[in-house]
Amino acid sequence: MAPPAAPLPGDLLIDAADEIAIRQDLTLTALGKRPADRILTVGRLLDVHSRQWREDQEIVVKGRRIAYVGPAGSWQGEAGERLAEPSLSAVPGFGEAHKHIESSHLTPEYETALVMPHGVTWVCEASHEFSNVNGPRNLEFWLTARRMGSPMKIFPLPGSAVPPTAYEWGGGHFGYDEQKGFLAESLMVAGLDEVMDWPAVWNPENPSYDRLWGMIRATFEKRGVVEGHAAGLRDLATINAFAAAGMASDHEAWFVEEVWEKLSHGLFVELRPHSLPDIIKGLIAKGLSDWSQIAFVTDDRSATDTLKIGATDHNVRLAIENGLAPEIAIQCVTLNPARHMRLTPWVGSIAPGRFADIVLLEDVPSLKIAKVIADGTIAAEGGSYVGALPRIDWPDWATKTVTLGRQLMAEDFRIAAPSDAPVAKAALLRPFHWHDDFITMELPVEDGAVQRDASRNVTKFAIVDRFSGEAKVSKMFWLGTGPRDAETALGATLGHDKHNIWVVGSSDAAMALVANALAEQQGGWALASGGEIVARVGYEVGGLMTARPAEVLDAEMQALYAEGAKIDWMYEPTFSPRWWPGFPERLSFATLTCAPWRWVLVAPSPLAPDGFVNVATGATHPIVW
Amino acid sequence: MAPPAAPLPGDLLIDAADEIAIRQDLTLTALGKRPADRILTVGRLLDVHSRQWREDQEIVVKGRRIAYVGPAGSWQGEAGERLAEPSLSAVPGFGEAHKHIESSHLTPEYETALVMPHGVTWVCEASHEFSNVNGPRNLEFWLTARRMGSPMKIFPLPGSAVPPTAYEWGGGHFGYDEQKGFLAESLMVAGLDEVMDWPAVWNPENPSYDRLWGMIRATFEKRGVVEGHAAGLRDLATINAFAAAGMASDHEAWFVEEVWEKLSHGLFVELRPHSLPDIIKGLIAKGLSDWSQIAFVTDDRSATDTLKIGATDHNVRLAIENGLAPEIAIQCVTLNPARHMRLTPWVGSIAPGRFADIVLLEDVPSLKIAKVIADGTIAAEGGSYVGALPRIDWPDWATKTVTLGRQLMAEDFRIAAPSDAPVAKAALLRPFHWHDDFITMELPVEDGAVQRDASRNVTKFAIVDRFSGEAKVSKMFWLGTGPRDAETALGATLGHDKHNIWVVGSSDAAMALVANALAEQQGGWALASGGEIVARVGYEVGGLMTARPAEVLDAEMQALYAEGAKIDWMYEPTFSPRWWPGFPERLSFATLTCAPWRWVLVAPSPLAPDGFVNVATGATHPIVW
Repeated sequence: MAPPAAPLPGDLLIDAADEIAIRQDLTLTALGKRPADRILTVGRLLDVHSRQWREDQEIVVKGRRIAYVGPAGSWQGEAGERLAEPSLSAVPGFGEAHKHIESSHLTPEYETALVMPHGVTWVCEASHEFSNVNGPRNLEFWLTARRMGSPMKIFPLPGSAVPPTAYEWGGGHFGYDEQKGFLAESLMVAGLDEVMDWPAVWNPENPSYDRLWGMIRATFEKRGVVEGHAAGLRDLATINAFAAAGMASDHEAWFVEEVWEKLSHGLFVELRPHSLPDIIKGLIAKGLSDWSQIAFVTDDRSATDTLKIGATDHNVRLAIENGLAPEIAIQCVTLNPARHMRLTPWVGSIAPGRFADIVLLEDVPSLKIAKVIADGTIAAEGGSYVGALPRIDWPDWATKTVTLGRQLMAEDFRIAAPSDAPVAKAALLRPFHWHDDFITMELPVEDGAVQRDASRNVTKFAIVDRFSGEAKVSKMFWLGTGPRDAETALGATLGHDKHNIWVVGSSDAAMALVANALAEQQGGWALASGGEIVARVGYEVGGLMTARPAEVLDAEMQALYAEGAKIDWMYEPTFSPRWWPGFPERLSFATLTCAPWRWVLVAPSPLAPDGFVNVATGATHPIVW
Repeated sequence: MAPPAAPLPGDLLIDAADEIAIRQDLTLTALGKRPADRILTVGRLLDVHSRQWREDQEIVVKGRRIAYVGPAGSWQGEAGERLAEPSLSAVPGFGEAHKHIESSHLTPEYETALVMPHGVTWVCEASHEFSNVNGPRNLEFWLTARRMGSPMKIFPLPGSAVPPTAYEWGGGHFGYDEQKGFLAESLMVAGLDEVMDWPAVWNPENPSYDRLWGMIRATFEKRGVVEGHAAGLRDLATINAFAAAGMASDHEAWFVEEVWEKLSHGLFVELRPHSLPDIIKGLIAKGLSDWSQIAFVTDDRSATDTLKIGATDHNVRLAIENGLAPEIAIQCVTLNPARHMRLTPWVGSIAPGRFADIVLLEDVPSLKIAKVIADGTIAAEGGSYVGALPRIDWPDWATKTVTLGRQLMAEDFRIAAPSDAPVAKAALLRPFHWHDDFITMELPVEDGAVQRDASRNVTKFAIVDRFSGEAKVSKMFWLGTGPRDAETALGATLGHDKHNIWVVGSSDAAMALVANALAEQQGGWALASGGEIVARVGYEVGGLMTARPAEVLDAEMQALYAEGAKIDWMYEPTFSPRWWPGFPERLSFATLTCAPWRWVLVAPSPLAPDGFVNVATGATHPIVW
């Protein structure tokens, strides 16, 4: 035997110096010259490199890594422990190239407990949500759970959308220097997250142009991956321009032809479940025989939805159900995304040197998961998480992020009439209104203020800045959303991507009540009705997440839904097929400002003093006149 | 139209700041908001991402890059020039993940002129030959031709074998600091070239252990690719250990089962022509349906051989002839190696943002090349190179690299008898003798010196150090090579991988004559017979290459072969199937010291004073006793 090794690094966060020590030991372990920790024997194993099954294999684990893979009994060395699963099929731990953990509304340690039983062992965190709340602490936040022993490998990609547009501010500001710093600080950082402010990419006149290209430059400089977001970019010229700009991927394609063009123009295509069935069927119909440039991603999925439908395993099942061979579908959540994100030394296959992250399947075509192994030990069994769940006492920089600095009053939401006339012209938006122009209506004036009109589905929508300590408020009339009931308002600190407070309400007083409640609880959802708060959901970390189990959060969400169901919500269809009648939970995405949005409402800012701005052109307009 | 762009960067060497300016312009060009330089219309185009052909396409070129690809006539912009090739099929410029340009014995600008007509437009230069001669100037050397306008994209990977083993020295010494510096200096550097000193990787006792792992560490730190070299490493434990060590690839597999194991253990497999037919047939027979982890490489090929058989195109044809679909074979020299080397933003496909490097085929199954476009302009037509061929006045650091510092004498090659006995025991090697033990023979003693024995195929072989200025000489008896004729010797400065002078000869005086001639001509080959030099080949750059056209070099080589053919060469078969009878050109590879070599002869060094050492164990032994 070789001389005893020096104590090995903890091997939680990837670091080049540690990596060397770990691999030096793994090399000797593979050769049988050092002992291993355990040997796992499996009935068969999917080699994702050749896309073929191998029967009766053993996987030798040392520390958190795989040292050896071969026919059962072939490794010549001493192991502390032996596990045999002769009836199960081993496939690599699932991962994905693009996900916002924030959208689960669980902190990373609890998200791990939720999704790891579904086979997920690694994820590229699309981190612009928390980054927009506390940019400087971005890396620290995402690496904390792993540093404390959580088995999930989170690879944070600093958000390009920090701030999302030049018309937003607060929380964080990422440019060349910040991105260079992140990539220099940790090898866990794989690149730049979804570049989604398309006007700021193509148009040199856009005020975010230099900031964004600075981040792209830093990413090239550090050999990272520049992830794209080409929502609504479907014409051939724009797809070409998007690829020419250096974007490596897109996860926003909805249609088969769109996927086909993006794929063939060199974009790695990341498919999301809502468009996946049609696209899989379409690609199969087109005779696609090489799926190496395709992956499946979740992007945004709430804990509640994950409890219902599953995590990445759901994506894989959906692909199989729509005709894709299970082995290819599994490649789309293992090797393909790992190779695209340049993470193959660590994840994406059951091979030496990689983390020992293995999904043990009872049945392959139905993807029935019996057990999940992460870092070489059982992390989930029969759907239950049994892995490490560190107790993290999240510090103030994570939990004190809603800073209004004052009590809001009904007056803050009043929209003064522009004249003494009995009516005023008003600019309106609908949720997911992606038209080049805003909507114009005449609204009644009372007591010197422009009024809502429930008979025409018109309500009031506001953004309250939660970063400056001054609680700056912008407000306007919106169409086809919000409560028809009197004295009712709904609001949240979850408002993509800047995550200020948004409030929609039938009375200004109710809107103020909601905003104050959200400040008091440091984030989440609040629903006011009849002069009081009737439901709350707490997102105490960053105003986006909670450090509690998924089931506890889900119960709170269900209570919110139950109260929400008692209210009559206005509705009009709009550009997004994912905008449904009923409780308007998706309003938290209706505050986006990336492509394909044009006119939006943001917090008052130097370039948009009233907050009403066309993000594609920079034009502003009064909200009433 | 957008405001006129600032002057664009020259776009020869990839640099993050330039990259941004170039892509900003390409983006606007794709959108038709800025003019392009030319539009190339082709009959069809292979999209390597989907592995499908697209009919009647246009490729819009701006500067050296592709701005737009789409159906002919679809781009809405102004272009300076239009070219139409309606009968030709466009595929991406060929590249490869592993090649020693030094082995062509042409400097990069002349190598380009030789291989570009064969479709090659980019290459990962496995740079340990020149690095071993002048390590500090390694990057400068490889980037000079491109910097001066050559259309070939050379991505140098600093050699891990500098020096090849701890028993060699001179020319260059690369460790952690050097590798970190190279990767920081230029984005053209894609990683670390073939890690081939396997004992120094697995064995902590090996004196090169820290140097080598330092280079691996620096490569991980900079997100580069660690290329492997697993020659002769075929047992499952070693393949596992090799992958566990972090090696990303191997190009040394000879057998189907070996390829299969390496592939399935996560190594990207780079196939060379000599083993390619059997391996292609074998992989097809095994039902391999995913070829994304496979590429074809040349590794070493002389200008003479390229003139005979072709360049990378030969590899592709060989694969097609052995049953691989042409489209997959083309992926194996385009997308697959580009993705593996993390170079997809620049090469590997005909897609926006990439260099406009396109091979125009007259016929696909036979890979008949009509034209080659590089940097958007015609570089080769009908097999002739018509691209830029910069005149480079290579400086002294490149051309004065054979420093003997004195005239060698016959006495330098004399092997003194160990005693007064009429015979002595001698340690012998054969070329490509990979056995654990050396060979032992009794040899006659005359005039106090141990003698050759042509009747038993025993000759003398020497290494003359060309770096210290002292011309240190190590020598011993070799079996089954060298001239049987009297007063004859052959030598070269090409002696992988340390590239000292090697000389094999039937007399000590002839050996001295050859060594002195090589110093005088600053590198190349020299053949002495009858007391005079009868043939010379000049490699005046680094003692490895010449800055002359391939045809001129080939004529010199043919003259050497012609003189060589007049001589009676001893021969015995040995471990390598590529060791043939006749003129022993492959002796320049018989001085290798990487796996699977054991006992070797190197220049005298502190750890091996006589130069005779077992590189796998560090053991030394007298050459006679």
